Amino acid sequence: MKLIRYSHHGHTRTGILDDGGQISPEAGRAPVADLAEVTLLAPCQPKVIVCAGRNYGSWGKLRKPRLFLKAANAVTGPDTPIRRPHGLRRLEYEGELAVVIGRTATQINRRHYRDYILGYTCANDITADDWRTDGQWVRAKSADTFCPLGPWIETGIDDPAELHLRTRVNGRLTQDSPTAAMLYGVDELLAYITRWITLHPGDVLLTGSPDGVGPLAVGDHVDIDIDGVGVLSNTVH
Amino acid sequence: MKLIRYSHHGHTRTGILDDGGQISPEAGRAPVADLAEVTLLAPCQPKVIVCAGRNYGSWGKLRKPRLFLKAANAVTGPDTPIRRPHGLRRLEYEGELAVVIGRTATQINRRHYRDYILGYTCANDITADDWRTDGQWVRAKSADTFCPLGPWIETGIDDPAELHLRTRVNGRLTQDSPTAAMLYGVDELLAYITRWITLHPGDVLLTGSPDGVGPLAVGDHVDIDIDGVGVLSNTVH
Repeated sequence: MKLIRYSHHGHTRTGILDDGGQISPEAGRAPVADLAEVTLLAPCQPKVIVCAGRNYGSWGKLRKPRLFLKAANAVTGPDTPIRRPHGLRRLEYEGELAVVIGRTATQINRRHYRDYILGYTCANDITADDWRTDGQWVRAKSADTFCPLGPWIETGIDDPAELHLRTRVNGRLTQDSPTAAMLYGVDELLAYITRWITLHPGDVLLTGSPDGVGPLAVGDHVDIDIDGVGVLSNTVH
Repeated sequence: MKLIRYSHHGHTRTGILDDGGQISPEAGRAPVADLAEVTLLAPCQPKVIVCAGRNYGSWGKLRKPRLFLKAANAVTGPDTPIRRPHGLRRLEYEGELAVVIGRTATQINRRHYRDYILGYTCANDITADDWRTDGQWVRAKSADTFCPLGPWIETGIDDPAELHLRTRVNGRLTQDSPTAAMLYGVDELLAYITRWITLHPGDVLLTGSPDGVGPLAVGDHVDIDIDGVGVLSNTVH
């Protein structure tokens, strides 16, 4: 099932998108709109966005997950502009699988991690590379529009390690990895984080980006495409 | 004026506290409760908590503000327990003046910073010192209960540089500084942060902690006392 947030005639609504592009307010109800006539928004409104760094392949598994935060102001939706800060030398895309929390999660057992997940969406962990020199990466990771999420929350995924992530910049494939290559799985990350940090419904975990991260220039179009989830598209302004 | 959030007979409400301890739902309305019969909560519910590090006296002024984030899960109210993580060697208090945003703030001019502020409250930037070895300070700064805020939002402060902050641990004075000793003022911090990061109503800026930061043991009682704002009290569990 695809859960969406959308704007229609000036109202913000949530709904379910079916395979025919029809939007219903909830399961079993009649459609109220067509995908073609609405604007999709980021599918959730997290307060907390916890991110795992260096969580794929060539980095090698660290002794513990390397975490950072993105701030809520950074969230933006599909097909919205990513704003490149003035004067920055290097802005980067990082395609990632995002986990959306469905139930308050404190000190969870990793075997039961599925109970706390509403579903999955695509994320682009936009990074201002110049500003990684700041000890803490607040500007580097949390400037406005640095966290595109979408296009929807897919609830029908049983195993997040059986997906495949591709990033395309202006149509050219730049990241191409099975999510099975994650060094810490979603179960391990959620168990580790929630030992100290309670996650609430709508909060988001970004699970790290595979090899192939690269720069974005003004005008570039970037797609994060996760098989079985969807495609998140944004353009750099 | 003192703006509060409180719990009363199982309901969460906002209100105005007068000098006689009476609570009204809004200015000019009759009181509906007495401070003695309610439980004060954190006076706001920020999504974004941006913090300035090394922003007092002996550090020396840095070339730019040093920022980090605290995550929303860390927020707790006055008179609630600060939970000391199991096995931690050193937990620290850091008394700070907190700025509560009242109006959406993007790329603000520092001369107009007052227009974006709802008021001020006290904060305790609780820190797990052991975990500062994590490159990004997610566990060190954002574990649950690591951001006590309160007891209320004082709206009647004209100049945040004319306040005085004192921290007491079990009654013993450990921090004692005028806020005029901040290296970057509230105006400079807000102008700097909002160049990239939009702050929304209810978001919070922590302005840094003066000399005298120190450890907390289980059972310790810590007060952050800012003249003209109020006293934020918590006990370590």
